[in-house]
Amino acid sequence: MLPVAVDAMGGDYAPAEIVAGARQAQEEDGVPVLLVGRPDELTDAGDLEVLEASEVIAMDAEPGSSVRRMKDSSLVRAAEAVRDGRASAMVSAGNTGATMASALLRMGRISGVARPAIATLIPVPGGTPTVLLDSGANAECSPGWLVQFGQMGVVFSRARLGVEQPRVALLSIGEEPGKGSPFVKDAYAALAATEFRGAEFIGNVEGRDLLTDTADVIVTDGFTGNVALKTAEGALKALLTALLAAMAERPEAMAAADVLAPELDDLYREFHPDTYGGAMLLGVKGVCVISHGSTRAVAMRNAIGVAAEMVRADVVNHLTEAVVAQT
Amino acid sequence: MLPVAVDAMGGDYAPAEIVAGARQAQEEDGVPVLLVGRPDELTDAGDLEVLEASEVIAMDAEPGSSVRRMKDSSLVRAAEAVRDGRASAMVSAGNTGATMASALLRMGRISGVARPAIATLIPVPGGTPTVLLDSGANAECSPGWLVQFGQMGVVFSRARLGVEQPRVALLSIGEEPGKGSPFVKDAYAALAATEFRGAEFIGNVEGRDLLTDTADVIVTDGFTGNVALKTAEGALKALLTALLAAMAERPEAMAAADVLAPELDDLYREFHPDTYGGAMLLGVKGVCVISHGSTRAVAMRNAIGVAAEMVRADVVNHLTEAVVAQT
Repeated sequence: MLPVAVDAMGGDYAPAEIVAGARQAQEEDGVPVLLVGRPDELTDAGDLEVLEASEVIAMDAEPGSSVRRMKDSSLVRAAEAVRDGRASAMVSAGNTGATMASALLRMGRISGVARPAIATLIPVPGGTPTVLLDSGANAECSPGWLVQFGQMGVVFSRARLGVEQPRVALLSIGEEPGKGSPFVKDAYAALAATEFRGAEFIGNVEGRDLLTDTADVIVTDGFTGNVALKTAEGALKALLTALLAAMAERPEAMAAADVLAPELDDLYREFHPDTYGGAMLLGVKGVCVISHGSTRAVAMRNAIGVAAEMVRADVVNHLTEAVVAQT
Repeated sequence: MLPVAVDAMGGDYAPAEIVAGARQAQEEDGVPVLLVGRPDELTDAGDLEVLEASEVIAMDAEPGSSVRRMKDSSLVRAAEAVRDGRASAMVSAGNTGATMASALLRMGRISGVARPAIATLIPVPGGTPTVLLDSGANAECSPGWLVQFGQMGVVFSRARLGVEQPRVALLSIGEEPGKGSPFVKDAYAALAATEFRGAEFIGNVEGRDLLTDTADVIVTDGFTGNVALKTAEGALKALLTALLAAMAERPEAMAAADVLAPELDDLYREFHPDTYGGAMLLGVKGVCVISHGSTRAVAMRNAIGVAAEMVRADVVNHLTEAVVAQT
């Protein structure tokens, strides 16, 4: 396969941890990687191919103008590598908005897609994760966009998680169709009128259903989705932190915590966002994986693995068929 | 003080658990209670005074029409008891929408308040809980309402939690003022232009900040607030459930979990919604505490205690001054 283009300059721990993860992906998992960035800062690149890019878009830079202005940035060059057939996918742990803008402006939208959306995996203890979209690409949406998010989410749930007949739900504040804001009621009507091929719209769900096996794909606008995602992450982090702090208070508790280490490690992994290798921007003409800013080597290796998997699953073509046929 | 009117018929475990909690509040905490409901179903009421109400609004009934139609329901009678000076406050674990509608229609709005809002306490490990409002009263809001939510939240944070100089923040999807939907940007501008007496607007926060000590009062529309609240509850429940399940898998882990029981119990209490005795409807002319539908005796006792505390703190008069003076 063509290499996965990795933005070596993006993320809180770039380039060292990004390069380390990219090397693991290529050397241990056999996924070819094309590092994109400043060659003189990528001295640990080993045998990895490097695509030179002289500029770096800062984590807090304004996305749209940065992408338009910094044409030789690692993000823009990574997206161009996909567009030009030099790479099969792009992965970045950098500025999320700029990653989206680069992918959108350089790869372009899939025909018929009104707006690309970010799909995130929400952990479900003992079950298959829930696909949440949009988790932040579009702060304001039209009801019809949510129908497309549902169609794209179905393809993603199937390709990424192997769910054959995904159940699609709308995030609201009550199960009845009449619950929610006027926008959500309109979205409900639009979703209920849609025929999902090999999938089913099961109605409204609430925030508490995100981490349960109630639905496989949950659609919402990017504002609500981002708040829900960050709230879930914050709640899990707060509880784990409090748990570890409580266990460190008594010697007997510390000893007991040591015994529980395997269970706690498993839980930590199950609930940690890094486990799933990042979110995916659905609706652009190429695979684009967006990792947490806090990505370290292991998470980057996972993200590159996910990108390769999505390329092999031909997810972009499946998205193209799903959205064109149903809109 | 005047008794707290308790809707004895509302909640998944009504009337038995509600009555049991009400008795604890009166008999053990010295808070006088007026039970409202069907006398023949309240046989365990002990010495508690009973106000007869023949009808019960079901948990899933449509709120507005139920309250208008069922004039002799326990919820409507409880709200009337406050209006008529027979009770100092009302508490219900029944239909949330009908509780709000009863309070709003029978007690009326505080002069100058555009819309009452539900304020909920979000746990902060090792710190003071965050006040989140609106957590579900108004699915769609205007930016000016969020300013009033901020003003009311400041009064509530001070009265309920003793925070002298509450920090008010707006829930968004990025810290910069330009982040969020058009509505959120407008709300930001309105909040930034407001002078909060003895309090401060500190800008945008994200979902992950809800369970941290970043802000004391976080304002948002009732749709986003309800999604965030339910998501946090769902995430905490999922993690605790997974933790308990994991600990039950190995004999050594079970033994270790026993040693950790005191710590786990404390954590469970710190993060459990019942600990805080329910949400409060701010902006009506009376104290109205809304408890979880799953409320049992202990949670009801706490909720009645909170209602009494808010009466003693004269919170309704403080709300009246705060909103009238600043709008």
